[in-house]
Amino acid sequence: MTKLENISMIKEANVYFDGKVVSRTIFLPNGDRQTLGVMQPGEYTFDTNEAEIMEMMSGELEIRLPGETEFRTLNTPESFNVPANSSFDLKIKTVTDYCCSYIKA
Amino acid sequence: MTKLENISMIKEANVYFDGKVVSRTIFLPNGDRQTLGVMQPGEYTFDTNEAEIMEMMSGELEIRLPGETEFRTLNTPESFNVPANSSFDLKIKTVTDYCCSYIKA
Repeated sequence: MTKLENISMIKEANVYFDGKVVSRTIFLPNGDRQTLGVMQPGEYTFDTNEAEIMEMMSGELEIRLPGETEFRTLNTPESFNVPANSSFDLKIKTVTDYCCSYIKA
Repeated sequence: MTKLENISMIKEANVYFDGKVVSRTIFLPNGDRQTLGVMQPGEYTFDTNEAEIMEMMSGELEIRLPGETEFRTLNTPESFNVPANSSFDLKIKTVTDYCCSYIKA
């Protein structure tokens, strides 16, 4: 269990894919933005604006990153990087807990 | 949009009802504990240990509080109190965003 200290948070949830993916936005003491969320089982394509580090904390899922042709299983906890202005695909098998860190350009 | 400042948060999600209800725990600057979560459509019974103030921020739902025989529609945003060591029932119609404040005895 990890405790994040001295952060700020937007109270209202971010809701995507009809609520199958939800998150809340936090700001670390240095101003860095993260979203902590949960994905229900399903298949999703995420578009990125900024580069991201996706930390999948728990859950069973498959991933296909930009430039990859096949899905591969992710063994959580596991992180991956996604370039800015790209997209990646996830097949969520069981409820998945994640933390997304946005990388300033 | 409300921004909560100088809080701490448990990074990992709390997962209930096979992930149909998920939340994260935060601590306000005065130490008060809250959970901010999202409920998928479904019917749920929640048991309380401590007294709670449930703030339903958005979503369509019906509620039956302790001692009530019938469900009634809640018009979000709306809050309600729940006594300690009791239970209440919710029928969630659309994805519902909530904040639960625990009241110290």
